[in-house]
Amino acid sequence: MSTIVNRRDLAFFLYEVFGLEQMLGQGDYAEFDRETIEAVLDTAEQIATERFEPLAAALDADEPRFVDGAVEMMPEIKPALDAFSEAGLIAAGFDAEVGGMQLPFVAQHAMSGMFTCANNAATNYLFLTTANANMLNTCASEELKARFLPPMLEGRWYGTMCLSETQAGSSLADIRTTATPRGDGTYAVAGSKMWISGGEQPMSENIVHMVLARTPDAPPGVRGISLFLVPKYRVDDAGNVGEKNHIALAGLNHKMGQRGTTNCLLEFGDGGESIGWLVGRENEGLKNMFHMMNEARIGVGLGAVMCGLGGYLYSLKYAQERLQGRPASDKSPESPQVPIIRHADVRRMLLAQKAWVEGGQALIYYCGTLQDRERLAGDDDTRDQLNLLLELLTPVAKSWPSEYCLEANKLAIQVLGGYGYTRDYPVERYYRDNRLNHIHEGTWGIQGLDILGRKVRLAGGAALELLAAEMQPTLEVARGSDTLSAHADALAAAWQQVQQTVAAVAGCEDRERALANATSFLDGFGHVIVSWLWLRQALVAEAALAENNKDTAFYEGKLKACRYFFRYELPVAITRLALVETLDDTCLTIEPTQFTG
Amino acid sequence: MSTIVNRRDLAFFLYEVFGLEQMLGQGDYAEFDRETIEAVLDTAEQIATERFEPLAAALDADEPRFVDGAVEMMPEIKPALDAFSEAGLIAAGFDAEVGGMQLPFVAQHAMSGMFTCANNAATNYLFLTTANANMLNTCASEELKARFLPPMLEGRWYGTMCLSETQAGSSLADIRTTATPRGDGTYAVAGSKMWISGGEQPMSENIVHMVLARTPDAPPGVRGISLFLVPKYRVDDAGNVGEKNHIALAGLNHKMGQRGTTNCLLEFGDGGESIGWLVGRENEGLKNMFHMMNEARIGVGLGAVMCGLGGYLYSLKYAQERLQGRPASDKSPESPQVPIIRHADVRRMLLAQKAWVEGGQALIYYCGTLQDRERLAGDDDTRDQLNLLLELLTPVAKSWPSEYCLEANKLAIQVLGGYGYTRDYPVERYYRDNRLNHIHEGTWGIQGLDILGRKVRLAGGAALELLAAEMQPTLEVARGSDTLSAHADALAAAWQQVQQTVAAVAGCEDRERALANATSFLDGFGHVIVSWLWLRQALVAEAALAENNKDTAFYEGKLKACRYFFRYELPVAITRLALVETLDDTCLTIEPTQFTG
Repeated sequence: MSTIVNRRDLAFFLYEVFGLEQMLGQGDYAEFDRETIEAVLDTAEQIATERFEPLAAALDADEPRFVDGAVEMMPEIKPALDAFSEAGLIAAGFDAEVGGMQLPFVAQHAMSGMFTCANNAATNYLFLTTANANMLNTCASEELKARFLPPMLEGRWYGTMCLSETQAGSSLADIRTTATPRGDGTYAVAGSKMWISGGEQPMSENIVHMVLARTPDAPPGVRGISLFLVPKYRVDDAGNVGEKNHIALAGLNHKMGQRGTTNCLLEFGDGGESIGWLVGRENEGLKNMFHMMNEARIGVGLGAVMCGLGGYLYSLKYAQERLQGRPASDKSPESPQVPIIRHADVRRMLLAQKAWVEGGQALIYYCGTLQDRERLAGDDDTRDQLNLLLELLTPVAKSWPSEYCLEANKLAIQVLGGYGYTRDYPVERYYRDNRLNHIHEGTWGIQGLDILGRKVRLAGGAALELLAAEMQPTLEVARGSDTLSAHADALAAAWQQVQQTVAAVAGCEDRERALANATSFLDGFGHVIVSWLWLRQALVAEAALAENNKDTAFYEGKLKACRYFFRYELPVAITRLALVETLDDTCLTIEPTQFTG
Repeated sequence: MSTIVNRRDLAFFLYEVFGLEQMLGQGDYAEFDRETIEAVLDTAEQIATERFEPLAAALDADEPRFVDGAVEMMPEIKPALDAFSEAGLIAAGFDAEVGGMQLPFVAQHAMSGMFTCANNAATNYLFLTTANANMLNTCASEELKARFLPPMLEGRWYGTMCLSETQAGSSLADIRTTATPRGDGTYAVAGSKMWISGGEQPMSENIVHMVLARTPDAPPGVRGISLFLVPKYRVDDAGNVGEKNHIALAGLNHKMGQRGTTNCLLEFGDGGESIGWLVGRENEGLKNMFHMMNEARIGVGLGAVMCGLGGYLYSLKYAQERLQGRPASDKSPESPQVPIIRHADVRRMLLAQKAWVEGGQALIYYCGTLQDRERLAGDDDTRDQLNLLLELLTPVAKSWPSEYCLEANKLAIQVLGGYGYTRDYPVERYYRDNRLNHIHEGTWGIQGLDILGRKVRLAGGAALELLAAEMQPTLEVARGSDTLSAHADALAAAWQQVQQTVAAVAGCEDRERALANATSFLDGFGHVIVSWLWLRQALVAEAALAENNKDTAFYEGKLKACRYFFRYELPVAITRLALVETLDDTCLTIEPTQFTG
């Protein structure tokens, strides 16, 4: 079977668990039915399998190089990216009026996941372009959209996001790049931008940078940041690409993983003006940037899950084929060796991967479903509620897979043993690639502060209540099941622990102490949500087993993985949340001098 | 301060916690006092700092290459290794009669740890040579020792261990390499050996391979394995190096980390005879190999700890210097940014690293102390008991650091953020290097089976009782401390959980089910032992703080890390051990077809 996607499992998520079919044929999704969704996924799987996956190892080994101020890279990548663009996939989620497919979010995640799994580093250029185009479509003037959106959606121009500077990574309040009005409505943007993925590459006809900068009289801090569109090459009113816009490539970062994606230090205003346009209003740059940041964060979570899935499927295949050792019941050296999947500890490593990776997929697809429900919602109240729920879940969707699907990759290496540690097999690459996901688009620590310091308190705690309401039907049905009612009780107890922990934190007036264990909260909270999503999957599986005897092994596997999650994983999360409830200040109070003495 | 060693902490472990001084001046250690130990460590630190550390990044980037059947590598490495040999450090632990220093084990670990931390890949050549020479010294005939030991201890010839074959990694019962008597007492060894670290390199005058092979009428399985010494170049009776011994380099493995250490596929008997000598008796090869394997496994644990330490010290230094963001108490963008160590989550990541890395050092140095007590013991009973205890602890010393000091490396990267993910900083290299340690010298799963299937039952469970007796004095003293008695109670409860779990496993007649969660047991059991070692450290720190006001920050840091370990870490371990007690069979019973359906 494929090692970049399990289509059976994808169908389970889309249609059996999250009911995509019930959303098709209406509103923005009027043109879709299950068949057309599957056709998109078929096309995506074919391109990912034939064009992207075969280049992944080579792109990792032959990373882009800085040569005379420009980037040289493997020429084979561009045609693969073109195949993606030509299939209309950059614009998949966009409205038909701008040339998009109006593909439901949950199907977009399923589609793009195959590409990430096949070749993470190559796909980054594409997904950055989609994200950039999305922001442009939402925030920019009609004039800017008319000039920049079509070539981006066609995949002729690629996009980037330029937020960080060397002195301002997590702290955007401290960015120094300036934007000076030129009197004609445009701005001259000047300054250094760091960590720019796809900031330079030799593939697209132009590069559209979305740049955070300060206008001359902007207030200090994040309230004085505006968003600018600054292209690599200047673009005239007719959309023609002209001369260079004085954005110098000052250097490439050499990363542990994701090596095929250039990551650049850019100098805007190098030897001339870098001319750009304001996107949205002045001083509202961060708001506009965050409009898309939530989507990007779910994208990071999806990427983490897909690295995990690639490692899981590969190590599963290996474990089924590789002969080594014998079971306790027949240790005779004259008996043939058995496939290593016969050994309990190998099964443990595969089952842990399955529990994390399919749990992570459930989390991402659930978020996609919420996005779809929001898009189809008939009234503002519903939209607001779904948006609130999405805001609560976004740090979880970003961070939980970044942690546990990286752990999955650690185990995928372990299943392959020494072979897994060599660059001849993809599992070590997945591990290296995945390590980035805890860092970019807001670190783990930043996400922790976001959820415990802000999200659980949004609208007076309404987001948590909405989530509880979403979980309620699962709990009710599960309580009626002989085999799953114990899990329902465990989930209810875990939720009780979440509430106690949130209450304890809310009751602490010392904000720094209240948030000192925010990352641990995020970790444990994520496990509680994923345990709910496993219970949802188990209920579907149990019902399917009761109704027919098709796919028995598939559904039994879901029940086993659910059991694994509730027995091996959830208790650890409750232990963590209970610690956060104590408002322990050990980490906060250790002094810098006390670490080494 | 140095980022490869914390000498203050080393002195704490050697003299304050483990009482090395009380072992000096007697028996094999008659010539040593604290001053001479410190002189050895000073020399080691100087060589490691000046000769090894500066080459680490370059060696990782410029890995050895396979060229025309031979290896080419950075010429700068050889002089560094020579500096180590010329200081007498290969022979540091050996008896004076063969040219050694008789350095205590615990000091050997401290000494060699600095080199691992400075340049793991380079030091592997040296430590393999020491391990090989140790086995030779213990198992070989006087004639073989006379011929091979001196050039190895002088660092002119390096050594390897050749166990695995492509079809036999963890399953040594299945090795096929043959050894055919040549009639003159020597053997012709033929077959392929895989994963041979240092199996070929251009630095030493000869390479001494220790090879597992089967004689013609050997019984099947591990009972039919013998050990042979097979040099790269033949050696005459006078010890002169002669013609090639027909060992072909068939290929180099390209690894994620540890790139500077060649890892080879070797063909013995390629185009001619590979002539070797039997070491020890026929069919006792595995016993002889395991004579040194316990030492090698502690060496792996030490390596893992030292990768962790390198990442910890580097990220600590970075966190003290790097300015970013502001505390909750002063968020004004016009206030200066603060060093990131000011943020609670950064402190958490540093404190977790400290707790794991110093806990891991305590574990390794404790093992070294047991080795020293065994060496100095006056009677066989004491020696047997200490050996039993060491056998119990060896899988823990190998695996616990391989897991938790790798986690430490993950956090070291996180502290540096995007920078940590680039190859411009050493933390990602430590992470890549460290990932090997769960794999070689017996995988994590193998260590789990060893401890739960064998070690806890050794001598009717006597090993566990010996360990409990070692812990008893700590518990007693801690119960008398206002601040530490709660930890003593927690440790006692954890030990109770260990005993219950072991009893449940012993009571299960289905051996496969009993051992299905052996890796989880090893994980939790390791945490219980390390929590004890943290309590020991805390008692020393508390006493020191009561007695004087020197080094207050150092000792306060020890108390904080102990508290962290008991509050954040031990509860998770108890949760794990409780699960193992239930004899959960979820992992064992999932069928291969159920993973993906």
